[in-house]
Amino acid sequence: MILVNGCQADSLSVQDRGLAYGDGVFRTVRTRSGQPLWWHDQFAKLSTDCQALNLALTNEAQLHGEICQVAERAEGVVKIIVTRGSGTRGYAPTHGETPTRIVFSAPLPPYASVEAPREVTARWCTLKLARQPRLAGIKHLNRLENVLARAEWNDASIFEGILCDDSEMIVGGVMSNVFWTKNGELFTPDLNESGVAGVARARILRACVQRDLPTHIGRWQRNAILAADEVMICNSLIGVRRVAKLDDTHWKPAGWTAILNDALNEA
Amino acid sequence: MILVNGCQADSLSVQDRGLAYGDGVFRTVRTRSGQPLWWHDQFAKLSTDCQALNLALTNEAQLHGEICQVAERAEGVVKIIVTRGSGTRGYAPTHGETPTRIVFSAPLPPYASVEAPREVTARWCTLKLARQPRLAGIKHLNRLENVLARAEWNDASIFEGILCDDSEMIVGGVMSNVFWTKNGELFTPDLNESGVAGVARARILRACVQRDLPTHIGRWQRNAILAADEVMICNSLIGVRRVAKLDDTHWKPAGWTAILNDALNEA
Repeated sequence: MILVNGCQADSLSVQDRGLAYGDGVFRTVRTRSGQPLWWHDQFAKLSTDCQALNLALTNEAQLHGEICQVAERAEGVVKIIVTRGSGTRGYAPTHGETPTRIVFSAPLPPYASVEAPREVTARWCTLKLARQPRLAGIKHLNRLENVLARAEWNDASIFEGILCDDSEMIVGGVMSNVFWTKNGELFTPDLNESGVAGVARARILRACVQRDLPTHIGRWQRNAILAADEVMICNSLIGVRRVAKLDDTHWKPAGWTAILNDALNEA
Repeated sequence: MILVNGCQADSLSVQDRGLAYGDGVFRTVRTRSGQPLWWHDQFAKLSTDCQALNLALTNEAQLHGEICQVAERAEGVVKIIVTRGSGTRGYAPTHGETPTRIVFSAPLPPYASVEAPREVTARWCTLKLARQPRLAGIKHLNRLENVLARAEWNDASIFEGILCDDSEMIVGGVMSNVFWTKNGELFTPDLNESGVAGVARARILRACVQRDLPTHIGRWQRNAILAADEVMICNSLIGVRRVAKLDDTHWKPAGWTAILNDALNEA
């Protein structure tokens, strides 16, 4: 089922600014028994992203109700898109636009099921992410870099691509955030210039603070990952997965993936 | 009138990749007497942009027919959007998508009419454009930087904002390309890292070669514009306009705006 501004529909105006300019944000939410997981964090991130683009905030209870209305009965995924709405031609927002709110469900993809392998193979992407501090971290609708990066491989055995920015600093996965450990300490790239700061990443970071795990957020080049003890990727659908292989580099399990998965799910 | 894949409609699927990721390109075409101006150049640029994103090419005769079908009788604007079409969730294109082709008309905006002032006031934008060589020059649907830059001012007397990239090199206007002259030579930024390479800019550059006008395409900082004899902006709707004022800098006419307008219209 698809809801557009609360009404059952499957289409939106061709003059919506979400289409014209990617002028909006989105969320991918895992659902279980018809309820969104990590709802508080998901809604907080949606609100933060809307504020960053000066989009009117969504009513929380209304959106929660719509998610429950469309969600699959067992396990599933709900995608939320909020755009600035339809406007006159031209880049200038008139501030009179009514946001468009789209909520729809999809079956849980096989790679996100609890039976899916907990270890994945990844590759380095050729594309280098541009650095735009004004948009970094936001899950906005301008995702052509992700589309181009994901189009770099067809090999179904490769689960994820790892991206650096144009100064050769690690940013994260095409559809995930990345963590690694070295000598008992945890590392993840800051996302002040590129990338999407996902809800799974935020939950892990919060739990690490609560557990007094030494955690570093910063800027590192590829060799930091290559020298890691364990490398992991995370997002709201897959949880935390261990990267067993990244191009020609292999790692054995060091026990951190389970720790981070616990952190993610308890936070 | 709005045509979606040739049929009268005013909406598209909420699962279209043009909305989800800005996975598509667009054109803004001026029309006169129901016909697109500069059609050969407009279609060539659309095709180049589609190729850059690996989108299936549009049939030229079909698209031309649709433009004529929707165009206003006298003067007007037609916007063309081509997206990768609807797809399954996830960044990976399946290569099985059918592109979505949207064609719709709008009245000519007052600022584009022949009665509009030929001289404009501009400002420097605060936002710095990110540099992404894989997307530079393409008129794609990821235009949040333009939206943010255009939202920097509300003063109706300011017509355009001029943008630099994050290395402080001039790129162009929010909705236009920029040219300037110094000692009888013409300058315009290269667009290999940021910006949109518009059809008006391409026509001017081609005409300058034909007329043996010394023309330089390169990377320059703000002081190059500030020291110019004449500064101009151009796009398919406004033609060439002289920038009379850019923040605190004023210029008197030096005769180049008419020369470039002739070049643009004869090319």
